[in-house]
Amino acid sequence: MSVQVAVIMGSKSDWETMKHACEVLEELKIPYEKKVVSAHRTPDLMFRFAEEAAERGLRVIIAGAGGAAHLPGMVAAKTILPVIGVPVQSKALNGLDSLLSIVQMPGGIPVATVAIGKAGAVNAGLLAAQIIGAFDPDVRRRAQNRRDAIRDEVLEGSDDL
Amino acid sequence: MSVQVAVIMGSKSDWETMKHACEVLEELKIPYEKKVVSAHRTPDLMFRFAEEAAERGLRVIIAGAGGAAHLPGMVAAKTILPVIGVPVQSKALNGLDSLLSIVQMPGGIPVATVAIGKAGAVNAGLLAAQIIGAFDPDVRRRAQNRRDAIRDEVLEGSDDL
Amino acid sequence: MSVQVAVIMGSKSDWETMKHACEVLEELKIPYEKKVVSAHRTPDLMFRFAEEAAERGLRVIIAGAGGAAHLPGMVAAKTILPVIGVPVQSKALNGLDSLLSIVQMPGGIPVATVAIGKAGAVNAGLLAAQIIGAFDPDVRRRAQNRRDAIRDEVLEGSDDL
Amino acid sequence: MSVQVAVIMGSKSDWETMKHACEVLEELKIPYEKKVVSAHRTPDLMFRFAEEAAERGLRVIIAGAGGAAHLPGMVAAKTILPVIGVPVQSKALNGLDSLLSIVQMPGGIPVATVAIGKAGAVNAGLLAAQIIGAFDPDVRRRAQNRRDAIRDEVLEGSDDL
Amino acid sequence: MSVQVAVIMGSKSDWETMKHACEVLEELKIPYEKKVVSAHRTPDLMFRFAEEAAERGLRVIIAGAGGAAHLPGMVAAKTILPVIGVPVQSKALNGLDSLLSIVQMPGGIPVATVAIGKAGAVNAGLLAAQIIGAFDPDVRRRAQNRRDAIRDEVLEGSDDL
Amino acid sequence: MSVQVAVIMGSKSDWETMKHACEVLEELKIPYEKKVVSAHRTPDLMFRFAEEAAERGLRVIIAGAGGAAHLPGMVAAKTILPVIGVPVQSKALNGLDSLLSIVQMPGGIPVATVAIGKAGAVNAGLLAAQIIGAFDPDVRRRAQNRRDAIRDEVLEGSDDL
Amino acid sequence: MSVQVAVIMGSKSDWETMKHACEVLEELKIPYEKKVVSAHRTPDLMFRFAEEAAERGLRVIIAGAGGAAHLPGMVAAKTILPVIGVPVQSKALNGLDSLLSIVQMPGGIPVATVAIGKAGAVNAGLLAAQIIGAFDPDVRRRAQNRRDAIRDEVLEGSDDL
Amino acid sequence: MSVQVAVIMGSKSDWETMKHACEVLEELKIPYEKKVVSAHRTPDLMFRFAEEAAERGLRVIIAGAGGAAHLPGMVAAKTILPVIGVPVQSKALNGLDSLLSIVQMPGGIPVATVAIGKAGAVNAGLLAAQIIGAFDPDVRRRAQNRRDAIRDEVLEGSDDL
Repeated sequence: MSVQVAVIMGSKSDWETMKHACEVLEELKIPYEKKVVSAHRTPDLMFRFAEEAAERGLRVIIAGAGGAAHLPGMVAAKTILPVIGVPVQSKALNGLDSLLSIVQMPGGIPVATVAIGKAGAVNAGLLAAQIIGAFDPDVRRRAQNRRDAIRDEVLEGSDDL
Repeated sequence: MSVQVAVIMGSKSDWETMKHACEVLEELKIPYEKKVVSAHRTPDLMFRFAEEAAERGLRVIIAGAGGAAHLPGMVAAKTILPVIGVPVQSKALNGLDSLLSIVQMPGGIPVATVAIGKAGAVNAGLLAAQIIGAFDPDVRRRAQNRRDAIRDEVLEGSDDL
Repeated sequence: MSVQVAVIMGSKSDWETMKHACEVLEELKIPYEKKVVSAHRTPDLMFRFAEEAAERGLRVIIAGAGGAAHLPGMVAAKTILPVIGVPVQSKALNGLDSLLSIVQMPGGIPVATVAIGKAGAVNAGLLAAQIIGAFDPDVRRRAQNRRDAIRDEVLEGSDDL
Repeated sequence: MSVQVAVIMGSKSDWETMKHACEVLEELKIPYEKKVVSAHRTPDLMFRFAEEAAERGLRVIIAGAGGAAHLPGMVAAKTILPVIGVPVQSKALNGLDSLLSIVQMPGGIPVATVAIGKAGAVNAGLLAAQIIGAFDPDVRRRAQNRRDAIRDEVLEGSDDL
Repeated sequence: MSVQVAVIMGSKSDWETMKHACEVLEELKIPYEKKVVSAHRTPDLMFRFAEEAAERGLRVIIAGAGGAAHLPGMVAAKTILPVIGVPVQSKALNGLDSLLSIVQMPGGIPVATVAIGKAGAVNAGLLAAQIIGAFDPDVRRRAQNRRDAIRDEVLEGSDDL
Repeated sequence: MSVQVAVIMGSKSDWETMKHACEVLEELKIPYEKKVVSAHRTPDLMFRFAEEAAERGLRVIIAGAGGAAHLPGMVAAKTILPVIGVPVQSKALNGLDSLLSIVQMPGGIPVATVAIGKAGAVNAGLLAAQIIGAFDPDVRRRAQNRRDAIRDEVLEGSDDL
Repeated sequence: MSVQVAVIMGSKSDWETMKHACEVLEELKIPYEKKVVSAHRTPDLMFRFAEEAAERGLRVIIAGAGGAAHLPGMVAAKTILPVIGVPVQSKALNGLDSLLSIVQMPGGIPVATVAIGKAGAVNAGLLAAQIIGAFDPDVRRRAQNRRDAIRDEVLEGSDDL
Repeated sequence: MSVQVAVIMGSKSDWETMKHACEVLEELKIPYEKKVVSAHRTPDLMFRFAEEAAERGLRVIIAGAGGAAHLPGMVAAKTILPVIGVPVQSKALNGLDSLLSIVQMPGGIPVATVAIGKAGAVNAGLLAAQIIGAFDPDVRRRAQNRRDAIRDEVLEGSDDL
């Protein structure tokens, strides 16, 4: 299977958050690539990346950024692939700025936004898998199995407080 | 083509917002169904709906709700299909409560959250189309055409202020 | 006296907060049980738990959760018992998301919400006791005695600054 | 049955919100009284009211207030009965001030807080009924019947969009 | 000169903040007293304290509290003396709850609110001095001297960066 | 009695709010003056006004402003008289910006901040009266009488809902 | 004098706000152009516009946008000219999302952000003039004259309340 | 070249933030001066500084302050030079108060506001350079070179995660 998902982020410092998306994709055996693509520092790279994404055979793009987080929305403006936005927790405003900059897109260009920080990155990986799994039964089964395993883990430990 | 997308909402009053998702799906010729399913008033219906969604052949679920908006997240907990959450604008807090209740999901169960209100509903329809379009070239083309048409409309009127 | 109160929480990590509810219940000699019940990871367990709660003779349910905190509201949707919701402090948004997800319930399904974090958990235990105490003079007296003791403690140390 | 619930509010202008609590209590045939009691303008009345509430046989107090909403918390400080706080929507800050002033009580004195505005007032009435219903099967049945009726209404109209 | 200012606070843990008010009063040689008076845990003490404050010859009351901070507003409701409210920084919401609970008083009962935390406590002491200084030239002069000294200190070090 | 209080505001449009402060001062027979003094548009007037206020015999300054509301804090920086700040409700952010710009003063220069909008303006008038009343028994009595009258009005209408 | 300032906006609906910037530029006789350039709907036009701006002889770009407002920041990423960002008031969140999306730029790419809505648009025009005026004495004089006229207007009407 | 930019700040403790503006100016070889000028503690110095800035040949003023941050807006009210405001991160409210106090200026007196904290200070230095660079090709080239170098650095390390 060729690369299905790209995980991009606005800065190297976002890796601490975004690696959780990559771990999920690895766990679910979904081929992916990862890259720093900055909306503000490398705008041309961003546009080229977004323009070529669909024809390269990617299915989903995961983009993480913090503060005035323009990467997910701008990539979404340049590709017809579904784009998942991960608001990275920012220093002063704890990611509220990242969240609003990503989720409040105008009608026409959607970004599938997930939670701020690590939980959001994990869920970005899962959401990508579920999107692919909507059409690929193998991926769907692996995503379901992961979920069942977590459920069982909770059930077993439920009374151990 | 069988029904691909379900558009559900927590209350009839959400229709004013959620109809914009349906309009987009119609415009893009994506078969869909629509229904009031309340997390709090019809929890059993919600669970049954979510449990059966995948085997009924749905690809994507769009769920809109306001205030302590639990519908998207609870449906997501009961299906492996991708769930798009639309925060409906609430009366006192203008949808900030809806947004946070939908987007801040814990790691394990993602909800693809879009903007508060009408723009979010439009984008939910588009995101569903783009997800399907990641695997169906016809849908992708129609989504791309809609986008191109809007771009051209902006370009033509750009100087008429 | 049979078990009167159930203290449930969405994740083991909530125990650090929710144990303060249990300590109060122990102090006031109110029989209780405690359990991890996750709205998102164990939705069926949650529904079964909520459905059986009343017939098992419980009087009050205390439910703690963080982020997009759906546990209190969903349990409330499935039981006619009073449900007390404790917003657990979340990482990025400090529990504001937890609070709004719990308190902003639509008309029809109330959740008795208390403060974010430890103070809220303590108060959840006390509120459960006061609810039971509204009908059980012994419990009422013990709750009143605890309060009087704290008052006296403040009064005695009032000038020691 | 003697008066079980008191519905108090900080100002006459809160009646537009608080009447919804009274309507629910009437619907569920729970004897109640209603009164303006202002924490700031009639503090002595408030204290006397709260001090006498338990011995007068009340089971639950519902208190609504807006802005720097001190009424629910101060009544709670002076009675061992459960107090339900309704944050009335304020003019400038839309009830966020009311909500935080009511819900963020320190450990020791709980207030069972519900949603801002009308939905919260409805739920305050229901929560009072559910608290009484935890010990009174007739009230519990009536509360359950109301809930079932609303569920059926949603189910029947679910596809009429 | 008899005691002019009372510095009260809702809990011993507020002393870390409120001591800064006391230090200013000492520095400006304004006789003061300090005391823990809790709105929620010692409501009767609070009322008695507030009722007697004017006749005891106090001129100004400084009251600090955090979270659902009712102490300043309730004391203000029971005395005609000017009351200065200091929002103590709270754990989850960083004092935003304290601030709104103190400042958003309804028309009729003012609380002179200062900044959250240490800066607010310092300023509470200064504001008390300036209020007294509006009628007492000696106090006014001392307050002015303190201010001039700080100005000179800034001016002298202005270029040392 | 000479002019005791100055009511200043940043713009003519603030008069709709600030007139409520003037009405209270009139009602309590406290001589006052009123004036538009803009921190940003008439900074020199503002400084001159503030510099001369104390020697002109004023006791208290009430300053109202909205948005980035610098008037109260800058006047406070130039006079040793107590300054009361009224946050005028702003268009986009409903006065939250006005409130934070006024109340969050650094240690050294206090502003006695009241609520956003009309209630705050009323209370600014009352606070000025209470400050003067701390030293002038006549003013104190009039302020107390006003308060008693309002209390009686609430008490009489308390059951008319 | 050739065109000095470009006023661009993300959508025709922003004109209601952005026209106030144009009015100021006209008043100060600064040649300008205006255009709809959408970051999300016409990203290529935006990039081309930004790339050519400096060589076309523009001095300053004013960009207005609302919601997830990416236009100012993305234009700033593609030009070395100073970019002024105007947060247009959005429907649900009143422009707080617009403001944070514009102002919270990462280190490296500044956007000179002004207030939300009309006041911000007026100030964007003035700021552009002041930037040009820092190097062009004629423009500086005209900007100073406008300011002096407004000051005089306030001074003359200062006591007419 | 004479001093082009002044970097002022409200307190010595702001230096930790504001030094980043100075580093950028040094890197781009733009002559600057730096100074503590407090709006509240040294208002006369502030006015004198602002009044003389233009005639001293300065082109741009950078002003950093935290909390009720009045320095940028008040300096802007007293000079026709462009003023860049840096919101310093405050203790309780993380700089949201600083941001709103600086950015929400009324129509007539603009402040070019940048991000909260270090990123904002860096960008203040860059913005000053870009403003000067709009008229000085050498400065423009140096600013462009800095930007290109950062772009290349990102491009080279883009895949090293």
